[in-house]
Amino acid sequence: MATQDELKKAAGIEAAKLVKDGMTVGLGTGSTVRFLVDELGRRVQEEGLNFTGVTTSLRTKEQAEGYGIKIIDIDDVDHIDVTIDGADEVDARFDGIKGGGAALLWEKIVATNSDKIVWIVDASKVVNVIGKFPLPVEVIPFGAGQVVKKFEAKGYKPVLRLDAQGEPVRTDEKNFVVDLHLERIDHPQELAADLINTVGVVEHGLFLNMVDTVIVGDEAGPRVLTNPHKK
Amino acid sequence: MATQDELKKAAGIEAAKLVKDGMTVGLGTGSTVRFLVDELGRRVQEEGLNFTGVTTSLRTKEQAEGYGIKIIDIDDVDHIDVTIDGADEVDARFDGIKGGGAALLWEKIVATNSDKIVWIVDASKVVNVIGKFPLPVEVIPFGAGQVVKKFEAKGYKPVLRLDAQGEPVRTDEKNFVVDLHLERIDHPQELAADLINTVGVVEHGLFLNMVDTVIVGDEAGPRVLTNPHKK
Repeated sequence: MATQDELKKAAGIEAAKLVKDGMTVGLGTGSTVRFLVDELGRRVQEEGLNFTGVTTSLRTKEQAEGYGIKIIDIDDVDHIDVTIDGADEVDARFDGIKGGGAALLWEKIVATNSDKIVWIVDASKVVNVIGKFPLPVEVIPFGAGQVVKKFEAKGYKPVLRLDAQGEPVRTDEKNFVVDLHLERIDHPQELAADLINTVGVVEHGLFLNMVDTVIVGDEAGPRVLTNPHKK
Repeated sequence: MATQDELKKAAGIEAAKLVKDGMTVGLGTGSTVRFLVDELGRRVQEEGLNFTGVTTSLRTKEQAEGYGIKIIDIDDVDHIDVTIDGADEVDARFDGIKGGGAALLWEKIVATNSDKIVWIVDASKVVNVIGKFPLPVEVIPFGAGQVVKKFEAKGYKPVLRLDAQGEPVRTDEKNFVVDLHLERIDHPQELAADLINTVGVVEHGLFLNMVDTVIVGDEAGPRVLTNPHKK
């Protein structure tokens, strides 16, 4: 039986095949994306693959540049051909949750500027109903406690994410992350609207109606699922 | 004829009367609020007024503390009795625009946590239709150029706000400000929804259906207008 890392790696290698010479490619963040970037780095070095990356976190940028992958700023691109990223959960409607790695804001900014969005996950991330994974919400530090109180009053079961030292985790933009322990999200569109209209919320980890393709690292090999609702 | 500063000062002094012993008071930002804080400081020092302030910017905090006004963090208050702030424009529906001073995010966070919101303006800020004043939008620096392109495509006439050195202005949260030169905003609710749902936008300067009272510094003396749609 394959380990979770082997499944992630298989999905990452499969997704790397989507990258062709001359493309501009959004590179996500997280443990599955690490395998993708390793494979892309190998192809750059061994096969002379020539593409440009746009990264969604400082750590992905560092890893990619270590392989000699050319990284440019998101504001210096006309468009992004495809963005490949991990996810914490995804359902059969291709809606999902991201942000376990606290990079959801830059990930969503890159995603919304991409012609195509591909998620790579191991099979454990595919769920019937999203929400078991705590939903990350990026919040402005000023007044974050008041936002947490509002979420509590709504029954969202918010928990301010802390680091090993007990200090609030800071995103790349120096914001806080509040994780909502909802267990199941039956109405993601309504929740997304409520969250984004809460003053103090910068962005949330619901990615709805955005993903074109999900590549699942499965025991029998990577499965490529195509969203029928996207062209 | 009174100068604009005299009108601002009259509105600020009138609003200061709303502050009573024991209250928690949100203090806005800007040239009109400076007069308010001056008057509150005078009352603290001369009359022994005893209240607690919550500030919306580092500069208001500094001014208030200079008078010995006790300032506490927004996350340390149960509630705010009243927030008094300036505005760049306000119409007859009590909807308005803020953010000329780049403090709109903290201002809106404090406002949404207040029992009552009072705006103090000189008569030049009262308009029939808002939008002549460029609408400030606070934007995440990462990908800000892409947000500007989207606003351009929608005809919003965005301009990234620069400082005297030609560098992007940074808010207290280190974000950028993009000013939309719309000239008139006929459908503020629709615009607000579009802006807040744009990934990369943190907050915008439309304050809709929020304000209880507007105090206008007018030639004949301060006029107190009460929003009939708020209790």
